Amino acid sequence: MAVALVAHSGGPTAVINASLVGVVDESRRHRAMGGLWGARFGIDGILREDFVDLHGQGAEKLRAIGGAPSSALGTSRRAVTPAELERIAGILRAREVRYFFYTGGNGSMGTASQIAAAAAAMRYELQVVGIPKTIDNDLEETDHTPGYATTARFFACAVRDIGGDNRALPGQVEFVEVLGRNAGWLVAATALARHAADDAPHLIYFPEARLALDRLLGDIEAVYRRLGRCVVAVCEGQLDEHGEAFGADERAGSRGKLAMNLAHRLSMVTAERLGLRTRSEKPGLLGRSGVAYPCPRDWRDAYACGAAAVRAAAEGQSGVMVTLHHDGATGLAPLEKVAFVERLFPGGWRNEVGNDVRPEFVEWARPLIGEVEPHGYF
Amino acid sequence: MAVALVAHSGGPTAVINASLVGVVDESRRHRAMGGLWGARFGIDGILREDFVDLHGQGAEKLRAIGGAPSSALGTSRRAVTPAELERIAGILRAREVRYFFYTGGNGSMGTASQIAAAAAAMRYELQVVGIPKTIDNDLEETDHTPGYATTARFFACAVRDIGGDNRALPGQVEFVEVLGRNAGWLVAATALARHAADDAPHLIYFPEARLALDRLLGDIEAVYRRLGRCVVAVCEGQLDEHGEAFGADERAGSRGKLAMNLAHRLSMVTAERLGLRTRSEKPGLLGRSGVAYPCPRDWRDAYACGAAAVRAAAEGQSGVMVTLHHDGATGLAPLEKVAFVERLFPGGWRNEVGNDVRPEFVEWARPLIGEVEPHGYF
Repeated sequence: MAVALVAHSGGPTAVINASLVGVVDESRRHRAMGGLWGARFGIDGILREDFVDLHGQGAEKLRAIGGAPSSALGTSRRAVTPAELERIAGILRAREVRYFFYTGGNGSMGTASQIAAAAAAMRYELQVVGIPKTIDNDLEETDHTPGYATTARFFACAVRDIGGDNRALPGQVEFVEVLGRNAGWLVAATALARHAADDAPHLIYFPEARLALDRLLGDIEAVYRRLGRCVVAVCEGQLDEHGEAFGADERAGSRGKLAMNLAHRLSMVTAERLGLRTRSEKPGLLGRSGVAYPCPRDWRDAYACGAAAVRAAAEGQSGVMVTLHHDGATGLAPLEKVAFVERLFPGGWRNEVGNDVRPEFVEWARPLIGEVEPHGYF
Repeated sequence: MAVALVAHSGGPTAVINASLVGVVDESRRHRAMGGLWGARFGIDGILREDFVDLHGQGAEKLRAIGGAPSSALGTSRRAVTPAELERIAGILRAREVRYFFYTGGNGSMGTASQIAAAAAAMRYELQVVGIPKTIDNDLEETDHTPGYATTARFFACAVRDIGGDNRALPGQVEFVEVLGRNAGWLVAATALARHAADDAPHLIYFPEARLALDRLLGDIEAVYRRLGRCVVAVCEGQLDEHGEAFGADERAGSRGKLAMNLAHRLSMVTAERLGLRTRSEKPGLLGRSGVAYPCPRDWRDAYACGAAAVRAAAEGQSGVMVTLHHDGATGLAPLEKVAFVERLFPGGWRNEVGNDVRPEFVEWARPLIGEVEPHGYF
């Protein structure tokens, strides 16, 4: 009997398990899917034929997993070779997997598309549906991606909290390093921390534009002169005017160079050049691996994408990814339109000088991320 | 008419405002206290005579502030000169402040003691009561300090969450930099993240003991061989066998040298020496500036300390600090016994090789910090 298979790809998020449970719940309603397997550790689990029987799991366990961050199946983020694509298609055929759900970002949608092609090449009828997942919100064809809002909420709350500390103990410049290599969606969301005119973040920079060191120092000096303190939100992928990471240690990552200690470097340079007391925080993985500040809307969107993927496959769709409208309704887009394409933060949502968002972004983001309530002070 | 004054000192915590509201609520019950002023930004606020009328605040605002992290009054952490001590005593006398509450750590208790002495030297009758506050839990004479448990809970949850990420996407060594310059109370608390035998943290190091780099690398290799992954919890103040910070950037802090990017340095050295994929997170201030994972017990203890300080002063006590028993009951200790003394993590609660806690610590910590619930996975 035909069965379905679901696998995860790329970094875990706080709501990837919600999408998984959406797939489990919805697939039970479709008789054509005689079973649902989950691959352990993504592509590697398929190649090793290491599968979890998802319809065999108890309701309580599934409910707990649906609310837990990280990937309960395990995931993988390595590239897939052409020989492996063929082996994967062969394994799916041998196990009568007719429905394949792949949860990931733009690179993963490319892999999903390649798996569909490999199955077609061996004339095996396989329906492939992608489930969007990325904290970076950098997928085309969708208003937003599951995983983005929870991480965005985390960083907005983090900047609010660090801003409160900075207000109570002024005389310091604080750099908060936000996740996001190439796209500024997450760093932009820290703007939701603001309520009063002097609330953090005081400066927001976007990795889409290079940032001259002198420009940064000038901005900080102006804020410090006004408030006697300053909180700067900056992306891990921010580059200076030379296309370098301000002298931070770098390592080769899957998508180009990766600055390892960017905020720290900025705090050192600022202390040296401006003679100010500085420090830096790098919450890093905390921003995607926990649910410190739950975001119910993100959870619902993630669950809806999983369920919609199953419905699409049951209706005969293939080679598509589920998309989200701003109101949370789902749609579909061809995998090729999403694969390997990175959606950057819109230039029109950055202010003219490039150190803040425009109000239009906040209007777009608030329904997704929710209110970031201010803390009281005298 | 005689009035009372409260001031904050040192870094804010998540529950210092709970102690403040404890002072406000309790002081209303004592007719001898004809008013309660709060100094803005600690000692600086006293010197500038910048005071908030705390009895004049609305109930709703006070309730909101009591639950908010950071210091709603503002705080300060600079040293106080002898001339300033005299000026402070003079200001208190001129304003008929008969009760002075000072909320802080061991250095602040020293300042409180000096203010008491300065008032006595001018024969001004001033009752000084210290309210303990420090995330570091490094005060003598008290079982624990308000502020510790919330920060400890944050780092335990952070390590649980990063551990979940590390499990789902293995093949990596993760360093989590925990607050704590000289005392290992906070890093020890990450042990509460563990439920299964292979749960993070896999290694915990204590700043009380030097850590040879080869020893660290050997420990990591052994864990990695067993699990194919590793999460290391390490204090910001950890020193190597030479008394250096593993080559991290350093800066002169108020209490000796301060390593600026310790976990990052450890991740670089481990990658170079062991050829493993590594990364590091530095949640830093997030661990004390927010209430990502609320800790009701810590809140109650903080509130109780504020209220107990007022009762002690009303009963004629002076030159004392409020202490906490393990069950949350309060007591009193002479300021001189607490001032400028740092209580380190007990050697008997570290395992023999110094890379983990003993069960006795977990037994002590759990009622304070609460359960750190595990996340589900397949």
